[in-house]
Amino acid sequence: MLKDRYPSRLLEDAVEAIGTLPGVGRRSAMRLALHLLRQPSDNVHHLAQSLVALRDQVKYCSCCMNISDDDICSICSDARRDHRTICVVETVRDVMSIENTGQYGGVYHVLGGSISPIDGIGPGDLTISKLIARVQELCADGDSAPEVIMALGGDIEGETTAFYIYRQLAPLNVNVTTLARGLGFGDDLEYADEVTLGRSLTGRQPFKP
Amino acid sequence: MLKDRYPSRLLEDAVEAIGTLPGVGRRSAMRLALHLLRQPSDNVHHLAQSLVALRDQVKYCSCCMNISDDDICSICSDARRDHRTICVVETVRDVMSIENTGQYGGVYHVLGGSISPIDGIGPGDLTISKLIARVQELCADGDSAPEVIMALGGDIEGETTAFYIYRQLAPLNVNVTTLARGLGFGDDLEYADEVTLGRSLTGRQPFKP
Repeated sequence: MLKDRYPSRLLEDAVEAIGTLPGVGRRSAMRLALHLLRQPSDNVHHLAQSLVALRDQVKYCSCCMNISDDDICSICSDARRDHRTICVVETVRDVMSIENTGQYGGVYHVLGGSISPIDGIGPGDLTISKLIARVQELCADGDSAPEVIMALGGDIEGETTAFYIYRQLAPLNVNVTTLARGLGFGDDLEYADEVTLGRSLTGRQPFKP
Repeated sequence: MLKDRYPSRLLEDAVEAIGTLPGVGRRSAMRLALHLLRQPSDNVHHLAQSLVALRDQVKYCSCCMNISDDDICSICSDARRDHRTICVVETVRDVMSIENTGQYGGVYHVLGGSISPIDGIGPGDLTISKLIARVQELCADGDSAPEVIMALGGDIEGETTAFYIYRQLAPLNVNVTTLARGLGFGDDLEYADEVTLGRSLTGRQPFKP
């Protein structure tokens, strides 16, 4: 394909910069650039500033490694939450998903991904050692055993990571639990895959009418 | 749906700003924001600066209304091009598409859209009067009749616009042509729609082996 002939170097620069975003091809980048041209200048400045502010000013909570505006995130600094229950998740998005359920009152630990040899991500690239240190501190600190909830992905990488963490936590006095796996709300048996339905069966629970 | 609980105001601002772009939903905006967080700061600054530069510094050619870095675009200021042939297009993207064919040596006129009463776009919102003035000047200026090529969309709006312009050009000594419509390169008759195939028939041309 011939290189596109841009009528303006500014347009070309913008299209190339937008095109580096994941999932945005050259056509979409062009469409977005021409859209921005038609917007009020203030809107474009606001967009640009918010991107730079996000990149340069956002912090990571020194306790749970969640994204935060301060050194300690609003969840870790909330005294009403149960700080002896740690929910281990892969990403910031997972924290938001669980918070949106309104069903969880503990704290989190964001790993930053999952162990994936194919992608070159080993345990050292994640915040696992930090998690173990947190749990060790909790064990030394109180009477009751803390709880660690594995809320990792249901794929091979997630299960590998959960198993790796579990082995390091096993010597400690800690309850390790994992998210229930089974049929989703409203799911039909007919359309469930075998693994999901199988786990739903083996993990069956007392009927509470 | 509950409002998402963002762990950071900076993240929320960025997601909201990105989410104003057309075709980018909240999930995509979140994905893009988290992607930018993982990029080198320089890359994010470059993206932001190129957006602002595009919006604030880009100019429109005072002759053909194409996007340009200067007052007169590189096409209009190119003496080797035929300035008595004007190709009328709706948008800047159309100019790029035609330039990419490498088959056109004339100049352009960018209307900025097409007449669309449903979207509230009338002839006054486009650069039609500027086009008529350009053609009148060409008619007064030389011996041969200038050519105006209608390269507008094949939809109702494009045809309406072409007809509107044609009526204004009719009194002038100007050749008005339009892009050939018919089967595309490699198209099968079997899969062509009736209108396209019909136009291909009525517009049939001498066979040149």
